[in-house]
Amino acid sequence: MHILITGAAGMVGRKLTERLVADKGLNGAPVDKLTLVDVTAPAAPAGFTGTVDAYAADISAPETAGKLVSGRPDAIFHLAAVVSGEAETDFEKGYRINLDGMRYLLEAIRTAGGYHPKLVFTSSIAVFGAPFPDKIHDEFFHTPLTSYGTQKDVCELLLADYTRKGFLDGVGIRLPTICVRPGTPNKAASGFFSNIIREPLAGKEAVLPVTESVMHWHASPRSAAGFLVHAASLSRDLLGPRINLTMPGVACTVGEQIAALRRVAGDKVVARIKHEPDPAIMKIVSGWPTRFDAKRALALDFKVEESFDEIIRVHIDDELGGKIAA
Amino acid sequence: MHILITGAAGMVGRKLTERLVADKGLNGAPVDKLTLVDVTAPAAPAGFTGTVDAYAADISAPETAGKLVSGRPDAIFHLAAVVSGEAETDFEKGYRINLDGMRYLLEAIRTAGGYHPKLVFTSSIAVFGAPFPDKIHDEFFHTPLTSYGTQKDVCELLLADYTRKGFLDGVGIRLPTICVRPGTPNKAASGFFSNIIREPLAGKEAVLPVTESVMHWHASPRSAAGFLVHAASLSRDLLGPRINLTMPGVACTVGEQIAALRRVAGDKVVARIKHEPDPAIMKIVSGWPTRFDAKRALALDFKVEESFDEIIRVHIDDELGGKIAA
Repeated sequence: MHILITGAAGMVGRKLTERLVADKGLNGAPVDKLTLVDVTAPAAPAGFTGTVDAYAADISAPETAGKLVSGRPDAIFHLAAVVSGEAETDFEKGYRINLDGMRYLLEAIRTAGGYHPKLVFTSSIAVFGAPFPDKIHDEFFHTPLTSYGTQKDVCELLLADYTRKGFLDGVGIRLPTICVRPGTPNKAASGFFSNIIREPLAGKEAVLPVTESVMHWHASPRSAAGFLVHAASLSRDLLGPRINLTMPGVACTVGEQIAALRRVAGDKVVARIKHEPDPAIMKIVSGWPTRFDAKRALALDFKVEESFDEIIRVHIDDELGGKIAA
Repeated sequence: MHILITGAAGMVGRKLTERLVADKGLNGAPVDKLTLVDVTAPAAPAGFTGTVDAYAADISAPETAGKLVSGRPDAIFHLAAVVSGEAETDFEKGYRINLDGMRYLLEAIRTAGGYHPKLVFTSSIAVFGAPFPDKIHDEFFHTPLTSYGTQKDVCELLLADYTRKGFLDGVGIRLPTICVRPGTPNKAASGFFSNIIREPLAGKEAVLPVTESVMHWHASPRSAAGFLVHAASLSRDLLGPRINLTMPGVACTVGEQIAALRRVAGDKVVARIKHEPDPAIMKIVSGWPTRFDAKRALALDFKVEESFDEIIRVHIDDELGGKIAA
C-alpha cells in the first residue's frame, strides 16, 4: 500500500507517520511506500523498511497535485493547511493553500482516470460559529466566523460532492484542539491550553492568559493520529452521504485541566502556572466552541481519551519518556 | 445609481430588470445606468431612460469579472448560474460557472481598491439535503446532495467571508421554486409545478407526473424580483454576520395547487391536467425540501404571496393580461 501525506512535517503529520510506521500497515494491508510532502521536506521516518519519497512541495501551485497523485497512492491524508491566524492575516495565502490546494488535489484525482483513492481530510471545529448551544451536536449548522473556518467548510462541501459523484472516497474529520502539543510555545491564541501543561511538566513556567472557567474541547496528538487511521478504515456504506464528522474529545475547563495536572504531577508542577489574564485573548477565546456531542463519530468507533488526566499521561509517555521534571 | 445584473436574460433577471425600470430607482436612489449581461446579450428594457449596457459575457472566463466591475456598479445582482440539472450532468461546467464565476467576481471586487458594492446573490434551497424535518428552520444544517447545491453553498460561504472582511456588502437569498414560470414547458424535473397551472390557463393540456400529495415551496416571479430589490436595501447592521437567508414562500401540495386553480379559473381549466404518474420524477421530487419556517426573512420584512390562489392571480395579471383561455 502506498500512502501520501500532505503537511507531513507538521505535528499531526509526524504523529501520523510514526503511527503508520509502528503499525506497519493500514486497514490490514502492509505499507510499502510513503510519500511525504510539506513546504519543507519532511524527515524520513525512523524504522520504516519500505520506500520513502519525502520532498518539499507547494500545494497551492496548480501543477503540484498532478505530481502528487501520479504515483497513485491508495490513501491520501491531506493535512496541509495554513493555520487559522495566518489565514486571517494573509487572506490570499489562506485561500490559495487551504482552498485552491484542496481543489487542485480533488481535480487531479478526478481527471487521473481509473483512480479512486481514499482521501482523509482534516477539517476543523472552526466551521462552527458562535452563538453556540451548550453542546454542539452533529447536525448543528455551519456559520464560520473566520476565513480559515470558511475554507475548511468549503473543502468539506467539495469533498462530499466529489465523493457523492464517485470520483474518490472521502472522509473529513474535524479535530478538537490538540493538547498537549509538543515543542515550544507558539503564538496561536489557543497555545496556552498546551503551554500550561507542557511547560510546567518540563520544569518551566507558563502563562495562563484566561480565567479558569474557560471550557474547551481537547484530544491528544496520539488520538489525532488514531482518528486519521480509523477514518481511513471506514467504508462508504458505513459513512453514508454525510462524510464529514466532528471528532470526539475531552471537554474540560482550564480549572479542570489544572486539577488534572495536580493529580498527575503534584502541587510543585502546578505552581509553575502564572495567572496573567489577557483581555485580548479572553475575547478571542470567548468566540470558540466549548464542547460537542460527537455521537456519530463515537458510533463509528472513533476513540479518544476518557479524561484530561489521560491526555496528560499520554504526553508524559509519548514526549517525556515517562518522566516529569521535579 | 449604476446596477449590474448577471444572468439578466434569464426569467428572474428579466423580472428584476422590469421591476427596477418600473420603480425608476433602488433604495430611494434613481437608477441611471443598467449593465445587463448573460451568455447571450440581454434585450434592453422598454421604457428605461438611463444608459443601458447589455452584452454577452462568459462569467467563467477569468477576465470577465474585471470588466464587469470596471464601471464600479453600486449594486450587483449576481443571478447567472448553470441550473441544477445541467450542473449535475456537466460537472466541470457547473463548477466553472457557478463556483469559479462567483469567485472571480468576488476577487475582482476585492482587488479593485476603494470599491465596496452591494452584492445580492441568488442561492437555492438545494443547499439543504434530505432527510428533512417537517419544516426547515433558519438554522437547519446544510448537506447538499447535488453539485448545484454544493456550488451554491460554497458561494454562500465565500460571500459571508468577503462581507465579514469588509470587501463588499453581500446578501444571499435562497429562492423558493418560482411558480408560475412563464414561457414554454421545460425539461426540469420541477417544471410540472408551473406547467399544470400555466398550460391549462392558456387552453392547453399539461401532464402531472406526481401524486397530489407532493408538497413544495413556491413564490411568484413577481415575488422573486421583490426579494432581490428588498435584499439590496438591507443594512449590514440589520443582517449581522449571517447574511444568507431562506426566502419566505407558499407551502402547498399539488392537490392544493389544483384546488386553487379550480377556485380561480374553474373546472374546465382544471380538466386540462392529465394525471400520468412518472416513477422517475416521483423519486427525484421525494428528495426535495417541502416547506420552511423562514422566520428571519419574514422578520426582515421580505414579502411573498399569502396563498397559491394569489400566485395564480399574479400569473394571470402579469403574463396573461388578466385573461384566462375559455
